[in-house]
Amino acid sequence: MLEALKKQVLDANLALPRHHLVTFTWGNVSAVDRQQGLMVIKPSGVEYAAMTVDDMAVVDLASGEVVEGGKKPSSDTDTHRVLYLAFADIGGIVHTHSRHATIWAQAGKDIPAWGTTHADYFYGGIPCTRRMTDEEINGRYEWETGNVIVETFQTRQLSPADVPAVLVNSHGPFAWGKDADHAVHNAVVLEEIAYMGIFSRQLTPELRDMQQTLLDKHYLRKHGKNAYYGQ
Amino acid sequence: MLEALKKQVLDANLALPRHHLVTFTWGNVSAVDRQQGLMVIKPSGVEYAAMTVDDMAVVDLASGEVVEGGKKPSSDTDTHRVLYLAFADIGGIVHTHSRHATIWAQAGKDIPAWGTTHADYFYGGIPCTRRMTDEEINGRYEWETGNVIVETFQTRQLSPADVPAVLVNSHGPFAWGKDADHAVHNAVVLEEIAYMGIFSRQLTPELRDMQQTLLDKHYLRKHGKNAYYGQ
Amino acid sequence: MLEALKKQVLDANLALPRHHLVTFTWGNVSAVDRQQGLMVIKPSGVEYAAMTVDDMAVVDLASGEVVEGGKKPSSDTDTHRVLYLAFADIGGIVHTHSRHATIWAQAGKDIPAWGTTHADYFYGGIPCTRRMTDEEINGRYEWETGNVIVETFQTRQLSPADVPAVLVNSHGPFAWGKDADHAVHNAVVLEEIAYMGIFSRQLTPELRDMQQTLLDKHYLRKHGKNAYYGQ
Amino acid sequence: MLEALKKQVLDANLALPRHHLVTFTWGNVSAVDRQQGLMVIKPSGVEYAAMTVDDMAVVDLASGEVVEGGKKPSSDTDTHRVLYLAFADIGGIVHTHSRHATIWAQAGKDIPAWGTTHADYFYGGIPCTRRMTDEEINGRYEWETGNVIVETFQTRQLSPADVPAVLVNSHGPFAWGKDADHAVHNAVVLEEIAYMGIFSRQLTPELRDMQQTLLDKHYLRKHGKNAYYGQ
Repeated sequence: MLEALKKQVLDANLALPRHHLVTFTWGNVSAVDRQQGLMVIKPSGVEYAAMTVDDMAVVDLASGEVVEGGKKPSSDTDTHRVLYLAFADIGGIVHTHSRHATIWAQAGKDIPAWGTTHADYFYGGIPCTRRMTDEEINGRYEWETGNVIVETFQTRQLSPADVPAVLVNSHGPFAWGKDADHAVHNAVVLEEIAYMGIFSRQLTPELRDMQQTLLDKHYLRKHGKNAYYGQ
Repeated sequence: MLEALKKQVLDANLALPRHHLVTFTWGNVSAVDRQQGLMVIKPSGVEYAAMTVDDMAVVDLASGEVVEGGKKPSSDTDTHRVLYLAFADIGGIVHTHSRHATIWAQAGKDIPAWGTTHADYFYGGIPCTRRMTDEEINGRYEWETGNVIVETFQTRQLSPADVPAVLVNSHGPFAWGKDADHAVHNAVVLEEIAYMGIFSRQLTPELRDMQQTLLDKHYLRKHGKNAYYGQ
Repeated sequence: MLEALKKQVLDANLALPRHHLVTFTWGNVSAVDRQQGLMVIKPSGVEYAAMTVDDMAVVDLASGEVVEGGKKPSSDTDTHRVLYLAFADIGGIVHTHSRHATIWAQAGKDIPAWGTTHADYFYGGIPCTRRMTDEEINGRYEWETGNVIVETFQTRQLSPADVPAVLVNSHGPFAWGKDADHAVHNAVVLEEIAYMGIFSRQLTPELRDMQQTLLDKHYLRKHGKNAYYGQ
Repeated sequence: MLEALKKQVLDANLALPRHHLVTFTWGNVSAVDRQQGLMVIKPSGVEYAAMTVDDMAVVDLASGEVVEGGKKPSSDTDTHRVLYLAFADIGGIVHTHSRHATIWAQAGKDIPAWGTTHADYFYGGIPCTRRMTDEEINGRYEWETGNVIVETFQTRQLSPADVPAVLVNSHGPFAWGKDADHAVHNAVVLEEIAYMGIFSRQLTPELRDMQQTLLDKHYLRKHGKNAYYGQ
């Protein structure tokens, strides 16, 4: 069942330590099969070195029930579900506590678009959510984490396809993409721009956003309908 | 004698350079056998690459005498003894000069609870001890180092089980856990949050602590009686 | 055709990840054959691990047309062309988004000459270009990127041989040298001084430039006609 | 001739990249044979990967003449000579441009004694020299670099045995020890405390020096006549 997708999700999870995005088991990748309404996600608290295809948990997107896999899915499963349900075009999601993206999340600040590295992948700043309310935290916490992300994109009128990442306040980053592999790719870029942003801001504390024209140019030469980057 | 515990302590010591927590021989791990009242600890100033099970020193917890092992135990042995004697539930202790935890210790500052990475392991800020007095330093220094840690936990009414680490002022971190392996795990997390805290504070100099509700949620979903993280 | 040069360009491109200057495919190296008026450059968006000599694109310097190579050349090809056409003595060019040089570029600041590490390779500060105009960005963007670099050197009366690098505002660094290998070498040094500069400035916010005499001494003992460094 | 010493110097030089203290060829280690009045030092500008015992240059301490070795000695040879001549008890010297020690050197600031990591190896702050005069730079520059180091120790009444390192203003660190291996060891520690000092100072800008009592305790438990650290 979903063998190819499970393999993709396993590979994407194993890419996290290779890209230095996780310590211990602090990260998870999922991918979705829209037709079947199923999601594949990493099991909770299992070490990367020991993980196999069979450990991947298959979860029903609508009900949250585990359809296949002997292991308990990631404790963040409900957050992934909300994102897949709200963001119709995404195919894979990554959550990590990668150092520099988490630094911005803890600081409760958006990462502004300050350069073409950013603009090559994200069409504008990376939003940081508001702090969650006590009701949300004490309620269905992981589900509400998803809701506060969706609210952030709705309130700010952001497109999840164009800004494929978010910082959850006091927590850490989620990134996504058309599949698990692209989600990991975006998580790596997010960490890179998070690092650079800290120190660009140190050099120029009142740093303005990059020019909209330059943001357009770089984002659209890779992602627009007239994209000309790559083969 | 205590072969299994010696093996655990050796393995935990060897994990320190693998996690980039030590330079040269600047770290030591111990573990305790409560029933026999004995502690196993790394020898003093021996290189990790050359260390064997037989190098581990067995020390009587009450008297401090070396019961087995041809090599002199770590110069920090008395600090470990005080902690085992005062904190009845801990089974392993790690001391390192890991860069970022040491940075906070040198700065004489607590590491506030600024995110869920912190809350997943530590139920509140990591305390930094007061500076030691000249009498303490010139007296039984390593023993008094233990005392000032214990005093810090008593004065602030902290539970060593819930806050399994401390920063010794002008010196560096100690971390502990139910065994040597968990102590190393906590030392790694401490280093991670120490790193992130430096830069979260740079981004938001007057950063508030995370919400108590969120701290509760994350700590208790991994450590409370209703924990649901992991398999 | 140009087999030796293509091999040099491939090797120089492969040196970028080895020196930790690139993430994914974010970098490119080229070299020029002045006699034939041809340039060899990395293909666009191809992974370093998979790259072969035959992937290298041969481009006519004057027209920009691809003369050989089945793959599309780097999207930055026109920037390289402008630099070769304007800077008659350079033989190789590197573009990266290396973290610390990019931090300065994003901050829109020159890297001052603050020490002998700098002076050993660069005869004065590394200039950061002005922001590009909307016309330039919306026009022949990559060509205009080259032009703004050339303008920076002309306006400030800098010699590309003596200051073999530049920061493109809101973008990242270009470095060059007498061949592809020297260009990479200079890109590595640029990253090193960019890193150190951030923190020297943190320690001493109003840091003066190094003394001109010391800059002369170090630059000229390696690069002047009386150079005495090396074998 | 001096085969054992040449082997030690080679090994110590090769330890520099292993400890991440050098980029390219930016470092050199020497050692002295006091009885014969000879010094062994790395050749100038030779890559570490290609270096052999036979490349090591033997230099007469008094005259500076190369006594053996087909390759030109390091361009910093005269600085090493001055230090051996002035500091009678040292046996090995290391010069690097290691990132964080160089950051302090470029900033023109001493590294204060801010913790026990420092105190375990250095009996007080690491001095930064004054800027050199134009006459010194334009004269026998490398020799004068040695002189300004010696002047710094004399003016401040520091003992080279107790403070085995210095920062040359606008340049970088020199460290030394009883032999080449101990010199490298001290260079590693210097880099470590340089790193930590930058960020301890960021956390607590007006950070006081550590207590003299604690400095005494840690330095003397490793280096005093009653030292009790190690086997």
